[in-house]
Amino acid sequence: MPKETTVHMTSSMTPAEQALKPDAEDCSKREEHGISIPEACRDGGEISFVHPADLADHLENLSLEKQVCAMRHMAKEDAAEALAELEENVAVDVLENLDADTAAQIIAEMDPDDAADVLDELDEDHRDVLLGHLEKEDSEELRNLLNFDPDSAAGVMNTELILVENNLTVDDAIAFIRSEMEEKENPYYAYIVDEKDYLVGVLSLRDLMLSKPGTKISDAVAGQNVISVAYDMDKGEVAALLSHYNYLALPVVDYEGHIMGVVTYDDIMDIMHEEASADMLGMVGADPEETVDTPWLESVRKRLPWLMVNMVNSALSAWVVYMFEGSIAQMAILAVLMPMIANQAGNTGQQALAVMIRQLATERFDQKKAWMAVIREGKIGLVTGFCMAVVSFLGAWLFTSNVLVGAVMAGALLCDMLLGAVAGGSIPLFFRWLGRDPAQASSIFLTTITDCSGFFIFLGLATIALF
Amino acid sequence: MPKETTVHMTSSMTPAEQALKPDAEDCSKREEHGISIPEACRDGGEISFVHPADLADHLENLSLEKQVCAMRHMAKEDAAEALAELEENVAVDVLENLDADTAAQIIAEMDPDDAADVLDELDEDHRDVLLGHLEKEDSEELRNLLNFDPDSAAGVMNTELILVENNLTVDDAIAFIRSEMEEKENPYYAYIVDEKDYLVGVLSLRDLMLSKPGTKISDAVAGQNVISVAYDMDKGEVAALLSHYNYLALPVVDYEGHIMGVVTYDDIMDIMHEEASADMLGMVGADPEETVDTPWLESVRKRLPWLMVNMVNSALSAWVVYMFEGSIAQMAILAVLMPMIANQAGNTGQQALAVMIRQLATERFDQKKAWMAVIREGKIGLVTGFCMAVVSFLGAWLFTSNVLVGAVMAGALLCDMLLGAVAGGSIPLFFRWLGRDPAQASSIFLTTITDCSGFFIFLGLATIALF
Repeated sequence: MPKETTVHMTSSMTPAEQALKPDAEDCSKREEHGISIPEACRDGGEISFVHPADLADHLENLSLEKQVCAMRHMAKEDAAEALAELEENVAVDVLENLDADTAAQIIAEMDPDDAADVLDELDEDHRDVLLGHLEKEDSEELRNLLNFDPDSAAGVMNTELILVENNLTVDDAIAFIRSEMEEKENPYYAYIVDEKDYLVGVLSLRDLMLSKPGTKISDAVAGQNVISVAYDMDKGEVAALLSHYNYLALPVVDYEGHIMGVVTYDDIMDIMHEEASADMLGMVGADPEETVDTPWLESVRKRLPWLMVNMVNSALSAWVVYMFEGSIAQMAILAVLMPMIANQAGNTGQQALAVMIRQLATERFDQKKAWMAVIREGKIGLVTGFCMAVVSFLGAWLFTSNVLVGAVMAGALLCDMLLGAVAGGSIPLFFRWLGRDPAQASSIFLTTITDCSGFFIFLGLATIALF
Repeated sequence: MPKETTVHMTSSMTPAEQALKPDAEDCSKREEHGISIPEACRDGGEISFVHPADLADHLENLSLEKQVCAMRHMAKEDAAEALAELEENVAVDVLENLDADTAAQIIAEMDPDDAADVLDELDEDHRDVLLGHLEKEDSEELRNLLNFDPDSAAGVMNTELILVENNLTVDDAIAFIRSEMEEKENPYYAYIVDEKDYLVGVLSLRDLMLSKPGTKISDAVAGQNVISVAYDMDKGEVAALLSHYNYLALPVVDYEGHIMGVVTYDDIMDIMHEEASADMLGMVGADPEETVDTPWLESVRKRLPWLMVNMVNSALSAWVVYMFEGSIAQMAILAVLMPMIANQAGNTGQQALAVMIRQLATERFDQKKAWMAVIREGKIGLVTGFCMAVVSFLGAWLFTSNVLVGAVMAGALLCDMLLGAVAGGSIPLFFRWLGRDPAQASSIFLTTITDCSGFFIFLGLATIALF
């Protein structure tokens, strides 16, 4: 926590509001007087530091005009850190409305991985303009990063590393790292490379400080089994691996073992949030990346196809009911009871679905364990189905004064709940086997199964037993 | 990554399988010969290190008997690290089946926060026995930790800190930390306290290494605005705060500002997984802590009450259908179409629900933004509802050759999808306002609303228009 310094609370405003106040109130006037925001916020000689994440939160509540104005007046490093913390949509809007020079200066100050994330969201023309305003070295690095799949390890890696050659001593390495530290934000580990830049070891600052002075780095890392990830590994898997091992960072390598970059825990925390949202949203057929900040018409566009799929699927279950139209015409009470069965089995299935999707999200896949989990869901479905069947038998019998209706209801409910539980447990595994996202629209397909079979079993049994 | 050393791959087994092999195969024999697991795994003078997380994964696949035997034979530090990584249920079983002496020795080697987590799951008698076998200082610390709510900051904090008094110089502090480092696992930050143990500052190793030699610590932290959390803050909020600021650790303080412990990023990653699972599972009425490793009868017990609630709720929507039994008896096609409306509105609502629950999980609550999000869902519901209404109008008209049925279907679908979207957006906010978990069983209540209103609007309109 290097940067916390006193925040002047001269009013009821939050520090972030205060930092932005002069600008938010009257941007053009400030500009005339040539007072930049950071200066305006300083008084009494002390720096009032606002964490970039808080600054970004506050910026998001301002109008676009004020956001742009504030960014233009902030110190470029502060603007860069705030931009990295802004919601994607907001960051894109701000960049598109800043003059290219200022925007390029801010981008040059950003961590390359954050800069690439934002640039990736811009339209291509605008991106090229901004890259053209950067120094050649910076723009080449960013173009390089932009070529990687944004959902891969390389797409989220940071390229600012501390590389230490393995022929140094520990003391030289500490001195070298100390000199590099002022430049580089978070040197959690020093990556040890041989003369060909092959990754041969990893040392934490703690390891270095605990090593006997004079030790050769090559001896300190001898026999290490470095855990690294290939540049094209899915970022969700990278997150699972880092959280499995509780590391601060994982090195990213190419297929030959050359180090390319590093994925750090702070990126992983964002990825974990994204993956959790993606599962939950995907399950019900919303866009995995949707948030309340997604433009609503984009959400409409993304959700409509799945709603259409849902419509077709529910037409399928309607067709099942239609087969038994005659039975319903004779005994309308069947139409009263049938949604209860579908609903109950659907809920049972969703419980199984949720447990399974989370399992696939948090643990590495183990085929045997996965199918044991399906059997587990089957047992749960059987027992909860039996309990609910007893309740529904009594309920339907008392309500219709027809013990047969009660029996049909109970039998159909038990069958459909068992089926729902097994289907809910299997669907994510089946999707995975197909190479699809295990969560995507799983709830929609589950409901189709529980609705169709619930209606079919109930109306079928009723037609046999009651007519 | 201090511990990776060469892993001997002498067969197709994974390193974890290999490390455990001698024991897993014939525990009693090994015991006779007095060969402990770590020794058995060492050959050629090199230590074959297996990461505790991998060891735990492998242990989970063994029988309880072999798990217990393996734990008894491992070096106590290795057993302690593996125990901390085991699934809760497995860890409890192992502890209950180990002799109290061995179990206590393993617990003594664990980080206090991990030890408290496991002990918290044991039944009270067994826990007291184990605590009785520990040294007085250790058992008092653990009893102290066990008194805290396991879902609070204090319940997840680690009490092994590096405290530095603010009257030292930077050089003395570095020397002190260096001496402490061998004892303490992950000293990300040094916490600076005054003579009364009030937390007055935080310095990272990087800050210390970059400070001018001779600087007084009190000068180095002057004016810092330390971000800390109160010991009773909900662990989910602690996770959100740490991930918001991208810190490695947050200090935990009492109401007077004395430092009590520290919550680190590795605990936070676990908490984030738990919270994401809790949202998804809670939404459909499963136990928020359920995993595929939960004993299935416990899952039955936890899910049944919500299935019962779902039954009562779906009885409510059945009652709505029952009110229109006469219309259905005259025109059974209504029973064919009505589930489509409820299904479609339910799916629309679940999309809104998922977006909203994730929003509440990842951002701090902002009342205005939340209600804007509900309006956003309303707009999405209106437009997607209109599109689906057009489709269903044409479908129902062609299918029944009755334009009025098409019109009734379209009107009911539009109304119910709009309602579903608004209800899906509002339910988590309403639950939160009630002081409940925003996710818990929200899907069940949503379905009740969309089913009841869908059936009522469709059958009501049909009764007016068609008879």
